[in-house]
Order: sequence, then structure tokens, then C-alpha cells
Amino acid sequence: MAQHNAFYAQSGGVTAVINASACGVIEACRRHPEQIGKVYAGHNGIIGALTEDLIDVSRESDETIAALRHTPAGAFGSCRYKLKDIETHRAQYERLIEVFKAHDIRYFFYNGGGDSADTCLKVSQLSEKLGYPLTAIHVPKTVDNDLPITDNSPGFGSVAKYIATSTLEASLDIASMCATSTKVFVLEVMGRHAGWIAAAGALAGEGEGEPPHLVIFPEVAFDRAAAMARVEESVRQYGYCVIVVSEGARYEDGTFLADSGNTDAFGHRQLGGVAPTLAGMIKQDLGYKYHWAVADYLQRAARHLASKTDVDQAYAVGEKAVELALAGQNAQMPAIMRTGDAPYGWTVEAAPLAEVANREKFMPRDFIREDGFGITEACRRYLSPLIQGEDFPPFENGLPKVAKLAKHRVERRLPEFKI
Amino acid sequence: MAQHNAFYAQSGGVTAVINASACGVIEACRRHPEQIGKVYAGHNGIIGALTEDLIDVSRESDETIAALRHTPAGAFGSCRYKLKDIETHRAQYERLIEVFKAHDIRYFFYNGGGDSADTCLKVSQLSEKLGYPLTAIHVPKTVDNDLPITDNSPGFGSVAKYIATSTLEASLDIASMCATSTKVFVLEVMGRHAGWIAAAGALAGEGEGEPPHLVIFPEVAFDRAAAMARVEESVRQYGYCVIVVSEGARYEDGTFLADSGNTDAFGHRQLGGVAPTLAGMIKQDLGYKYHWAVADYLQRAARHLASKTDVDQAYAVGEKAVELALAGQNAQMPAIMRTGDAPYGWTVEAAPLAEVANREKFMPRDFIREDGFGITEACRRYLSPLIQGEDFPPFENGLPKVAKLAKHRVERRLPEFKI
Repeated sequence: MAQHNAFYAQSGGVTAVINASACGVIEACRRHPEQIGKVYAGHNGIIGALTEDLIDVSRESDETIAALRHTPAGAFGSCRYKLKDIETHRAQYERLIEVFKAHDIRYFFYNGGGDSADTCLKVSQLSEKLGYPLTAIHVPKTVDNDLPITDNSPGFGSVAKYIATSTLEASLDIASMCATSTKVFVLEVMGRHAGWIAAAGALAGEGEGEPPHLVIFPEVAFDRAAAMARVEESVRQYGYCVIVVSEGARYEDGTFLADSGNTDAFGHRQLGGVAPTLAGMIKQDLGYKYHWAVADYLQRAARHLASKTDVDQAYAVGEKAVELALAGQNAQMPAIMRTGDAPYGWTVEAAPLAEVANREKFMPRDFIREDGFGITEACRRYLSPLIQGEDFPPFENGLPKVAKLAKHRVERRLPEFKI
Repeated sequence: MAQHNAFYAQSGGVTAVINASACGVIEACRRHPEQIGKVYAGHNGIIGALTEDLIDVSRESDETIAALRHTPAGAFGSCRYKLKDIETHRAQYERLIEVFKAHDIRYFFYNGGGDSADTCLKVSQLSEKLGYPLTAIHVPKTVDNDLPITDNSPGFGSVAKYIATSTLEASLDIASMCATSTKVFVLEVMGRHAGWIAAAGALAGEGEGEPPHLVIFPEVAFDRAAAMARVEESVRQYGYCVIVVSEGARYEDGTFLADSGNTDAFGHRQLGGVAPTLAGMIKQDLGYKYHWAVADYLQRAARHLASKTDVDQAYAVGEKAVELALAGQNAQMPAIMRTGDAPYGWTVEAAPLAEVANREKFMPRDFIREDGFGITEACRRYLSPLIQGEDFPPFENGLPKVAKLAKHRVERRLPEFKI
């Protein structure tokens, strides 16, 4: 097999372990010098490919690449940019081919979530529809855990561990204070459409009365009266109430509890502020003193508290992507397959990208408790393995040590292209 | 020396390491059985003493007490309750004497911040003013780092490490996203009057252009035009802007940027929401897409990321408190004295409580950069040693393991007392 170059890029919201996948891809490529020459990373995702803004990863040392495993966020820059379809936006695809030809790129690894899977699927059609010999593999990543087929999405396990731990810690705090001060604590977590992250908060407690006392999911229409009754009951019975609420919490009619009115580049509404909204309701209806926190980027960037299971899986899907590419498996995604709950086991298998793109996986109804405010045993069995194990990064001078990439740019060979 | 019992209680807002101080006090007491019989913990601070609601700590195992060292928040319950002065509220002090007599308590350890130091000082006057032989020692604690005399306050170093780490991690996240998405990230941190915690955020970066690009202190009057100019410059120059803002940020006239209108039991105004307020201003004035986080209790409960220096100091002041008590040093506080910056060194020395109570230590002006938006080298030299070292708790089933106290109550010997 002749030697060609590979392209790797990161897309969509980043995670604590997306760079661990980058590490998996790059290290696997380095183990196959007979087939893969250089790895070029797209600066800011697919935009790097379109604008020929390429980082020469082969000029980074093995130590730097290894350090990606414990570096949060997207080391090569990510993007929120979705390719339109080939038929109506042919120029973009022809440009991609020009760039790939100019740099002898035959392997394409795109590391992202649902929207990015769609982009990767479109790129994978270059070979069939436009005759350019490219093998495109999607490397899964999303804190939202909403990708189909794969048992879970790399990035989710670490957020889950962070939210469960933070819920546990903050619950101990409020339990200490509730006699004379704060009675209610509200933690807002990510999850626009799927309540997976909110569900992870429930791992903080298990026994009767253990916090969190309410979990509020986007999947269950918010019923103010029912929620307030639960808050009051919890304060009366346990002295305090801890609530984990998803940013996507909404009313029966679909209106979000907190809607900032802004939209992102994909047209998704930008949410935020459900915690203060809910806390305000509680103050108004019940009069309790409250505190609230919005974890926002802190939760998905918290590499210092990553789940070892998640880090291992993120690396493994990166590695597997290269294996699939070398086997010529175009338009595939390495998916995590669960082989058992206790003991937990997993493997990585190829899944057709066409079945992944543009499909969201919601919480199954039997993962949410009958009353809508907690998780079931089935959900706990699913979630618990994903937060197992610690993988603390090295620290230097009191702070986590992160990879410092040189990011040498590849010399441009083509005219400028405006996107 | 005859054997008498000791009373220990926690007061005010809790921290990630106040239980490490409890551990220091209790383990030190256990090493002196000839002088100290039982340790009784007040359930919910001084309220436990007034209402004779005492936890018999002698019935907790050595393992459980050792586990307090890595358990966040206040294991015995804290309170926001300040004693009035002896002259006008004599009944409360007479009640304290009754309770102490009934349970042969001669040592009083009160673990708290500035307001609690005042309570401890008043209790210390029992011996002089009301003739009851009590030795009262204040064990310092506050995330706000605003206690005088002591070089730093136990609890602060761990918040500082958490905020510096979170700022670093979230900054990597936004740096990844800024090409096509979020341009500004605002992290709101605690610190009503003193900007110590906000200053700690600045430890995340050091070199030119490294985030955070703005730190907003309560000590510097907020100038919207100047702040917006800095945000714009940062986005233009680096592509994004990271801001760490103190909850106590205020305008020239003293108005807080975000004032919820509520007050706590000490009459302090309850703040919250400066991050969304500031983000809204940025959207309005500059139009940038933003994200914001409010760390709230997460920051002070984050034992999973405690500073080892802080844990060691929290334990040491607890130990020293017992030593001072046994030496009959009434109305003292063990204070941390810095013996050097590099290498960092510290000892614990007695400080008169009268000089501690009701005095707040603000950031010295020469710790804040001339332009008001960052810290100086002097501040960095002061802060950096406080976040050094990690002291990860043991984990079990993916979550931090915490002490589970039996909390056996001491049998009541007195009639009920209403507070």
C-alpha cells in the first residue's frame, strides 16, 4: 500500500477528552509510517481544510502528542460549521478535493458530535460522487451523549463524573448550612435536548433522602406545582433540597424555562439561566433562601476530574478510526459496544455513518423515574460504569499541565478560498 | 492537670477543608487523654451549645475521624448565628455556662471566619466576666481569605486552586471555539468585599495574552467603558476574552453589579448573577457571543481539587488550637505565618483574638495591577504557594469517599432553651 497523508480535525463543542481521541488517532497513524505519511490537523475543524489552514502534526514531538491525552478542549481549534449538501454547494467539495490533492490527503478523520457526523458523511461521499479516493471516518465525541448506535459518547463520562462529584460536594455544603441559612441549591447542567448529564447528577446519591432530591429533565414537561411540592417536601423532611436541572428544561408547550433568545451557527437556540429562573420561582412560591450554580464550560472542560473509562474510550475510538481507515472502511464511525454492566465491559466496533448522522439519542423513558424527578435502577446501571476510575493529569506549579503545541503551519499551495 | 471535656463547632460558610481542621482538633484531643476527656461537637455551630444539641465525637472511630481530612463542608453542621454582647444578652451566656457545666466542658474550639471570631471572642469572656473557667480558641477558616494577622485563611488555598484550574480549563475550551462561536467567557467567583478569589483566577495564565484577560475586583470601582474597551481589545488581539469577576464587583457609588435584594442572617446582602449581568452588557455593547458560569458552592466544596498546602494548614491550625488550649491561652487564634516565598515556608503562631474579630483584610492596592484588571507580581508571589500540591481524596465507585459520622447525641441534662 502506498503512503499518503491524513487529515484530522475537531468539530462542535469540545470536551475534556477530545484531545485524547486526537492522541489516539495521531499515535496510531505514527505506528503506520508505511501507509500514513504526515498527519495534518485542520485549524478550526473543517474550516482548516477549506481554507488550507493546516497544522503539520508530524512536527510535534511524541511527548507533546502524548500530553494531548490529558489536555482538555480542542488543541487544534474546533468550529461550528456544517457543510451543505454536495448537489447545491459543489464548490466547497471541489475545494476540499483541491486541498486534499495538493497535500496528498487520502484519510479524513473528523472528531465531533451529531452535526459533525453529518459533515463527515458528506465528505465521505467525495469518493463516490466526485471520484476522489478518500476514506472518511467519524470519531465520536459529545458531552451530550446523544449519538446513536454507540453505547455512550466519549466526553460524556467525564462530564458525568464531574457533575456527580460536584453535586455530592455541594450537597454536603448545603446540608451543613441549612439549619440557619440556605435551604435550596440548584445546579444547572448542559443538555439541550437530552437529559443525560442531569441524570448523571443523580449518581451523587442513592439511598432514601440522599441528594439530589430533584432532577429536572428536558424529556419531562416541567410542572411548576409538582416541582414546588417536591421541593417543599424535601426541605420539610431533610432540612434542605438539592436540584440538578438541565439547561433544556421546558414546559409542556415546549418553551424553555430560560431562553436567552440567541441562536448559534447551527440555528440552535442558546440557552442559559434556568438555575436562577428556577431559584427565583422557589423564592416566590416557597420563600426559601437559595443558592444556584451554572457549571457551563467548567463541566465539559474539567479534565482534572476526568473518568478513566472515558479517557480510555476516547483514546480507543481514535485508534480504531485509523484501523478502519487503513482497512478502507469509508463512512464509518468507531462505536462503543457494551458487553456487560457488572463487571462492565466494552469493545469498539464500526458503525455506518449514515445511521449516525442527524439522529439524536434521548433518555429512554424507563431511565426516568415514574414521577419524572429522578433516575431508575436501569439508568444507574447504565451510567455508573461510565464514571469509574480517575485519570488525574500531571500538575505543575499547582495547576494541571497541558500540551503546548508548536502548531507549525503547512505551506499553502493554493489560492485563497473564502467560506 | 485534671481531665475535662472539649467543645468543637463549625460556623459560617463552610469550605473544602474545614473538616480537616476538625480532624486536627479531634486527633490532637485524642492524643491528650490525661487532660481532655470527650470531645463534644456542637450540632450546627454555637446553636448546638445553646440548645444542648451535642454530638459525642468520642464515639466515632479513628478511621471516621481520619476521613474528615478529605471530606468537604461542615460534618457537624454549621450556622450563621452571631452572639450579641454579654452586657445586653446575659441570658445566652448564662445558658452557655449551664451547658458547659452540665457536660464538664472547659475547652471551646470555634472554627469559622470573621463573624465567628467575634462570637468566639465573646465566649472567651465567660471566664473573666462571668467566672467560668473556659479556654476559648478560634480556629480560622474562610474561603474569602479576609481574616487579619494570619498570612492566609485555611479554605482559601483550595478555592484558589479550583478557580485557577477551572479558569485554565475553560479558557482552553473557549480558545478552541472562538473562531466560529463563543468569543467571551465570564466566570463569577465568590468574594463579597475582598477580591482574593478573583485574583486566584489570574494564576491560570502568566504570559502576554494568556487568559484570564480581565479580572474584576470588588476593590476597584467598575468602569463599564474601560472594561468594554479591554474586552474588545482582547477579542481583536487573541480572538477571545476570558473574564473572572468577583460577586462583589461594584460601581463607583458602591452599587453591586448584581444585587438580588436578599440579605443573610448577618445582614449581609446576598449577591449572585454578576456573570449574566456582565455578559449581557458585553452582548449589548459589543455584540459578542458569550458563555458564563457561576461556580457558587461548587468552588468552596471542591475537595476533589484541594490544595495540599491548604489541607496541611487547615489540619495544623486545628492541632495548634488544642496545644494553645492546653497551655491555657484563652482568646487566641492559631495564625499562619509565612517564613518565605520561594521556597515557601510557614509556621503556626498564636494571635490575640481581639485583634482578629470584626476586621476584614482586603487585597493590598499593590496586589492589583495599575489598570485594575489584573494582578501584580507581588500578588502572584503571595498566591502561588497557596495552591501548591494535590491531595486527592480516595474515590469509591467513581465518586469521592466521604466520612459518614454516626453522630450519637449526648443525653440532654438541662431544660429546653429557645434561641
